[in-house]
Amino acid sequence: VQRFKIIVEYLGSKFVGWQRQNNGISIQQLIEEAIFKFSQELVLVYGAGRTDKGVHALGQVAHFDLEKNVKSTSVMSAINFYLKPHPISILEVKVVPNNFHARFDAKQRRYVYKIINRIAPLAIMNNFAYHVAKPLNTNNMKLAAQCLIGKHDLSSFRSIGCQSNNPIKNIDSIDIAQYAENIEIAISAPSFLHNQVRIIVGTLVKIGKEEWEVEKMAEILAAKNRKQAGPTAPSAGLYLLEVKY
Amino acid sequence: VQRFKIIVEYLGSKFVGWQRQNNGISIQQLIEEAIFKFSQELVLVYGAGRTDKGVHALGQVAHFDLEKNVKSTSVMSAINFYLKPHPISILEVKVVPNNFHARFDAKQRRYVYKIINRIAPLAIMNNFAYHVAKPLNTNNMKLAAQCLIGKHDLSSFRSIGCQSNNPIKNIDSIDIAQYAENIEIAISAPSFLHNQVRIIVGTLVKIGKEEWEVEKMAEILAAKNRKQAGPTAPSAGLYLLEVKY
Repeated sequence: VQRFKIIVEYLGSKFVGWQRQNNGISIQQLIEEAIFKFSQELVLVYGAGRTDKGVHALGQVAHFDLEKNVKSTSVMSAINFYLKPHPISILEVKVVPNNFHARFDAKQRRYVYKIINRIAPLAIMNNFAYHVAKPLNTNNMKLAAQCLIGKHDLSSFRSIGCQSNNPIKNIDSIDIAQYAENIEIAISAPSFLHNQVRIIVGTLVKIGKEEWEVEKMAEILAAKNRKQAGPTAPSAGLYLLEVKY
Repeated sequence: VQRFKIIVEYLGSKFVGWQRQNNGISIQQLIEEAIFKFSQELVLVYGAGRTDKGVHALGQVAHFDLEKNVKSTSVMSAINFYLKPHPISILEVKVVPNNFHARFDAKQRRYVYKIINRIAPLAIMNNFAYHVAKPLNTNNMKLAAQCLIGKHDLSSFRSIGCQSNNPIKNIDSIDIAQYAENIEIAISAPSFLHNQVRIIVGTLVKIGKEEWEVEKMAEILAAKNRKQAGPTAPSAGLYLLEVKY
């Protein structure tokens, strides 16, 4: 048995999310089916992060096992061949030790959230970014983000349905970059609660619009109450960028 | 009568092209219809460049006249409102002198062509770039492009159906930039022949793949024969970036 680690890019708007579900087509299911088509082996594909419906990935990581002895390059071209015409692409395939686990061994996940801040609606980036018409004060957003760095109870920034036992999470960094009308918020952490990035972004946007003061972020964090935070920002702006081991 | 200059962004893959045609929906038609919906005036919208089916625009320019006295900001929000849900967006509206002409007064047009050069297929950029799997030698492409700068008979780089009377055109610049797997070819010129950018790109890609020598570009130019040049690169990679007056 050989274990393969794969890096995957996908357009989230076409799927119900990474994980297999009864109500639609998932990325996991399509990759498992593509693997079956070339290997005749029924495998389970384990992803590093269970991205939600509509969330994109530029560098999702997953692993699976094959009984057959196949070269990495052949695995890559075969899966990509059978994935057509779905907007999922295997960027890299590597043989890894049999105890490697894409989810449990991940040391850090990095997400990036893309905002386009202009009055005009989005013609080209419509499914690829969050359109905010009101001018955003990114300095205030950067200041507000600081209090989230480190280890905190993030109960205010998890969805009501979040199934994690422990709301205490570490955030390694939040970088906010602006070039012309584009704003990118990159967040790195060992792991995330459900909707954590999108609720943090929704709160930062409230502060960027100057509807809320910079200081409000610390109050929301201390409140440990989802209702205090901003809305969940749309899935179209969110990308799983990379997973580190 | 007031004349308005507009800057337009659109997703080319959804339309038959900029110009009104009998075989499908054009960007020009949808903008004219949106203007009618808010003003009740039947206008003609004149574009700076007649982009083909599938070609995108980040900064197409056009003009039209209105009898009614309306403010630029109201014109912009009204057209954008009635353009929904089509992937066309008016980025800017300005009142201009009544003798301004978007097409005839344009001094320079700038196009950018986006290539993604990697083995893996494109999941996210599928309709937004040209996928080239074989590694491209961009140094050779830059060298080859040099002989096209200036005033030349570009008969080798125009489509068979090109209706221009004169194949002699000036090219101001060709800039080839590479960052990671992305290659962008930006071409500026006062005006272009039909399919000129896409045929130049198709030829540059042949040279980048090292299927053709750098010197072949000058031979193709001298031949004044479309059959000597490379294939027409796909429309998905082409963007009308800006028009200067």
